[in-house]
Amino acid sequence: MTYSVAVSGASGYAGGELLRLIADHPEFEVRTVTAHSNAGQPLVAVQPHLRTYTHLTLKETSAETLAGHDVVFLALPHGASGAVAAQLEPDTLVIDCGADHRLESPDAWAAFYGGEHHGAWTYGVPELPRVSGTQRDRLAKTRRIAAPGCNASTVALSLAPGIRAGVIEETDLVSVLAVGPSGAGKSLKAHLLGAEILGSANPYSVGGVHRHIPEIQQALCWAGAAAPTISFTPVIVPMSRGILATSTARITPGIDAATVRAAWEDAYVGERFVQLLPEGQFPRTADVLGANTALMGLAIDEAAGRVVVVTAVDNLVKGTAGAAIQSANLALGLTEATGLPVNGVAP
Amino acid sequence: MTYSVAVSGASGYAGGELLRLIADHPEFEVRTVTAHSNAGQPLVAVQPHLRTYTHLTLKETSAETLAGHDVVFLALPHGASGAVAAQLEPDTLVIDCGADHRLESPDAWAAFYGGEHHGAWTYGVPELPRVSGTQRDRLAKTRRIAAPGCNASTVALSLAPGIRAGVIEETDLVSVLAVGPSGAGKSLKAHLLGAEILGSANPYSVGGVHRHIPEIQQALCWAGAAAPTISFTPVIVPMSRGILATSTARITPGIDAATVRAAWEDAYVGERFVQLLPEGQFPRTADVLGANTALMGLAIDEAAGRVVVVTAVDNLVKGTAGAAIQSANLALGLTEATGLPVNGVAP
Amino acid sequence: MTYSVAVSGASGYAGGELLRLIADHPEFEVRTVTAHSNAGQPLVAVQPHLRTYTHLTLKETSAETLAGHDVVFLALPHGASGAVAAQLEPDTLVIDCGADHRLESPDAWAAFYGGEHHGAWTYGVPELPRVSGTQRDRLAKTRRIAAPGCNASTVALSLAPGIRAGVIEETDLVSVLAVGPSGAGKSLKAHLLGAEILGSANPYSVGGVHRHIPEIQQALCWAGAAAPTISFTPVIVPMSRGILATSTARITPGIDAATVRAAWEDAYVGERFVQLLPEGQFPRTADVLGANTALMGLAIDEAAGRVVVVTAVDNLVKGTAGAAIQSANLALGLTEATGLPVNGVAP
Amino acid sequence: MTYSVAVSGASGYAGGELLRLIADHPEFEVRTVTAHSNAGQPLVAVQPHLRTYTHLTLKETSAETLAGHDVVFLALPHGASGAVAAQLEPDTLVIDCGADHRLESPDAWAAFYGGEHHGAWTYGVPELPRVSGTQRDRLAKTRRIAAPGCNASTVALSLAPGIRAGVIEETDLVSVLAVGPSGAGKSLKAHLLGAEILGSANPYSVGGVHRHIPEIQQALCWAGAAAPTISFTPVIVPMSRGILATSTARITPGIDAATVRAAWEDAYVGERFVQLLPEGQFPRTADVLGANTALMGLAIDEAAGRVVVVTAVDNLVKGTAGAAIQSANLALGLTEATGLPVNGVAP
Repeated sequence: MTYSVAVSGASGYAGGELLRLIADHPEFEVRTVTAHSNAGQPLVAVQPHLRTYTHLTLKETSAETLAGHDVVFLALPHGASGAVAAQLEPDTLVIDCGADHRLESPDAWAAFYGGEHHGAWTYGVPELPRVSGTQRDRLAKTRRIAAPGCNASTVALSLAPGIRAGVIEETDLVSVLAVGPSGAGKSLKAHLLGAEILGSANPYSVGGVHRHIPEIQQALCWAGAAAPTISFTPVIVPMSRGILATSTARITPGIDAATVRAAWEDAYVGERFVQLLPEGQFPRTADVLGANTALMGLAIDEAAGRVVVVTAVDNLVKGTAGAAIQSANLALGLTEATGLPVNGVAP
Repeated sequence: MTYSVAVSGASGYAGGELLRLIADHPEFEVRTVTAHSNAGQPLVAVQPHLRTYTHLTLKETSAETLAGHDVVFLALPHGASGAVAAQLEPDTLVIDCGADHRLESPDAWAAFYGGEHHGAWTYGVPELPRVSGTQRDRLAKTRRIAAPGCNASTVALSLAPGIRAGVIEETDLVSVLAVGPSGAGKSLKAHLLGAEILGSANPYSVGGVHRHIPEIQQALCWAGAAAPTISFTPVIVPMSRGILATSTARITPGIDAATVRAAWEDAYVGERFVQLLPEGQFPRTADVLGANTALMGLAIDEAAGRVVVVTAVDNLVKGTAGAAIQSANLALGLTEATGLPVNGVAP
Repeated sequence: MTYSVAVSGASGYAGGELLRLIADHPEFEVRTVTAHSNAGQPLVAVQPHLRTYTHLTLKETSAETLAGHDVVFLALPHGASGAVAAQLEPDTLVIDCGADHRLESPDAWAAFYGGEHHGAWTYGVPELPRVSGTQRDRLAKTRRIAAPGCNASTVALSLAPGIRAGVIEETDLVSVLAVGPSGAGKSLKAHLLGAEILGSANPYSVGGVHRHIPEIQQALCWAGAAAPTISFTPVIVPMSRGILATSTARITPGIDAATVRAAWEDAYVGERFVQLLPEGQFPRTADVLGANTALMGLAIDEAAGRVVVVTAVDNLVKGTAGAAIQSANLALGLTEATGLPVNGVAP
Repeated sequence: MTYSVAVSGASGYAGGELLRLIADHPEFEVRTVTAHSNAGQPLVAVQPHLRTYTHLTLKETSAETLAGHDVVFLALPHGASGAVAAQLEPDTLVIDCGADHRLESPDAWAAFYGGEHHGAWTYGVPELPRVSGTQRDRLAKTRRIAAPGCNASTVALSLAPGIRAGVIEETDLVSVLAVGPSGAGKSLKAHLLGAEILGSANPYSVGGVHRHIPEIQQALCWAGAAAPTISFTPVIVPMSRGILATSTARITPGIDAATVRAAWEDAYVGERFVQLLPEGQFPRTADVLGANTALMGLAIDEAAGRVVVVTAVDNLVKGTAGAAIQSANLALGLTEATGLPVNGVAP
């Protein structure tokens, strides 16, 4: 069966990536693409790399233009999707790539975002370990999905196995991320200009203020943590895409190295899109460019008493659009991997 | 007075940077440049950016070619400088940019480098806080200087103020660095090829095995630590130069935010080449490109109970060649900043 | 039907890209991968981005290991494929991604390559306009295909339409290319190191000595030129992949702008993988990253009396591996576009 | 003697580079820095790499704030300097880094810029060969200098020697430039975002419409051309700074290779900041990063009947701010090279 699809925010990076992936999805057919300031233009004028969509013109984003589709992807600026989503039919599958429906806690929402809290939808990271089972179990038949924050899901996938297995402590977690500027979207800000980004590493949201922190904590609580604390620092580096998250945690006293490693092996054995590399190997972001794959390397630093987990994802694929489609597949009862690439584009 | 200078390893990145800086040093005159496989070539054929040295030809590196100079800079592969250095006159000022003379502990040397331990020379990071005073005090009149490892000195400068002041704990230190590939030198390795580096973030020496770890621990001990433990992960990112080190430490219980910040302010007040930025500001590596400057930003993450220090340096300048020249200035009784740039080349 | 496939040179960039593309080809099944120094290793240890090939181990490249497949792709260093190819069965489809079988003229071979000339195979650029028809016509049922040089085919596609239509002159052609370093392969050369490539534009083979020049001239002769002359300069720029070729030619006196443009429109109307953009639009290499697409923009510079054609390709796809597979599809009677992506990965 | 200096547009890239260079100029002292939207901020908040200027605050750009200085540098958006300049004292040395005073021809101004034509000031490229002598001769004692367009001066320096010597023809000139995005300034445009620039080569102003074309033609006429025609295409590539211009011209019939090369040798012999490399060598932009140096390589392509000149400059130094200071030195009777670096920052 073919599902009719609408993509809002189609002129942005997340919207463009949704369309790139859906072009290879055998069950999805894009009927409608919407935008704000670019409405009225041919899609391909704004996204010239999407050659298979020369027939589509961007419409204005509204509940009307989005109505009547089986699946609606919202790739809107944070804060914009709540109102639109509320007007869509309950049996339409809606996947929000923005932050509006990610946090369960109104307090966390208020502290890190502010404004109206629209409540939480089913979180779209199927492989995420939970105390019992995985997040996958909750995605079947849902009609409202919150695609994850790219940094948050990368860190959550990196640390949740150890939390669930009790092999790492939940405080003094530290994660530092090298991230490409596409994660910040197409917003016109001086610090995102090419001349500023090239040849430079630029930290931002330092010191516990990044909005993905409560999302990580929420995921770690699902894995069994009570009150996890994490120092989280993203650094923009000169690559258009990609996240390389280096996460480290204190090993629970008395746990040996093999048991630590086994926690991650158990969590991701058999997973197509989250893979733990053999001992001594670590991933590069190029290995997952364009792919829905999270590659992970793990080392035990016995002298420091800590485990180090390095995870590479493409922020626009596994971090956003790929996670959204993978979750949509589950919600629709399709094969989970349908239409999603696992091989990266390297070099 | 003019000091005659020889630079060995002049065809490499550290050697080239020494020459670039010395060209603007009013008291230094380069008489001899040496190399290994490039001996016999005009310097400018190998280092075409150094237009002021068109009169120099690379000689073979040996004790003979290096003899008879007031100042000798060794920028040789690790393990190569010990033998050469042993043959130079005791009153010649020798600065080793390699690792051979950095570590005091034979055990640390054996564990991380192996082979013969040549003992430790005076460590060339003047601003480094020690329990009493700074490393600067030890550099006056020395004739043997070990220029620092670029990653090590960046992290040591980032954390030593807090250790000395007792405001951070010495265990569970974590440092993750975004580094440019010039730090790895000109060695012909597949993972350092441009096609591999571009568009990708690549971790290496993950899990407590990087050779700069004992050097960091040594410096933190000088600042008062007893047995510091640090999780240290470098990530190569696509910029030719630069280190952005994100370091974080648990705040000592009972210490308030202002006291934490004051430790760093006290350590670096009045320093020209190590500057703490105002609260809320964090450095980018572009800000220090080509300069002998370490820029530092500090945040208190109260929820995580940790301080985060982000430090940017140019690995070839403040990390290596600039530190070497700054230390040499002190050893010779010259004004410490002679010939050293403080402004970066940005954007 | 499923064709069994062998890929030699599978540890290199062209070999890796063949494998990435074939993974999505419904009629091809990779049975054998071969290499030289990496033989014996798991493929995925050398090409960690190719997650679908975890079952394959690299064998030694030889006629024996390559024998017995329906399709053999040779991605070997220049000069290495002639001997291997001679030992393969005549009815095996062999596609050589090296230069050995591209040039018809022994003199051109001698002047630009030297050594034994193995003769020319059918040139693998289906859309290339010829005096009569296109190169596509010659690819049906051939069993020996020479995949093109990436720079050569990009320039040939850019200029052949104007030559064939007689709207541009065949002398004083000029082409300058911004190219990524992956085009130079994985060879360990100092000027290809990341630190050298980052932040720099580096010309090479300046002044009429690049080996792709006779290949361009050959293609332009197929389009009707008698003795074309072209100034051709490639410049390595800091992007892992991609070619942006700016080609310009003197407009034949008396030809008006619309007629010039029509030559290119006629040549590529209906082509899936070679597309002329609307007037006033020009391509970026990001638009074709990972895709088998050549995007072309054309402008008439009336004051200079010249046409300017800007063409973007991914050197590893449309420039090499994609062209090879597209040509193989034609030779086997498959739908030409089978398994080949047309959308780029951007940003 | 110390000259008091004001820099307007100090928050932009050209303004920042003027300040970086002037910091090392022994005769210049910056008293005033001005800006538009950033007025009121500390300079170092906007230009954090300029550590020697922590004492300066940005004032509003106006004739009042700029009055009373010996030297005023205008680094304003095109069109903004005419009005300000008209209000400055006649004996103040004013250097305009914008385009407003570069073109002598009102027609060329009208065709490529439009709006009021403010007339031409003395063009600030000292080494530029003219039919008789060089541009240097006209800069002594002038009080109004037009700093060049970075692309224009690079191409003019590349081709003027051949025009003056009559060894190349003045039509069918072609120049293609790889340029860094800092040349476009800090303007907030989507195509200049880091995510768009990284990993991509992006042409712009294709087909004879770039504003630097009449400036190149003007310079070539000064060298003896009557009505030169040039096809000029800039391509933005992922490096923050730098121009690599590949320029090619038809060799005048009957002129041999040695005579061609001699034209460039004669033009630049003894020049510190414009250097022709030995035969067979070509420059990279990294070789001139941060330096006031133009490095040039020249090849004769006998088969194509053309000379190829490859020139590397740093667009912000030799292309703009360095040219401005070098010209100011001449106008003030100072040693021409005062305060200007000749060595590049590489790698």
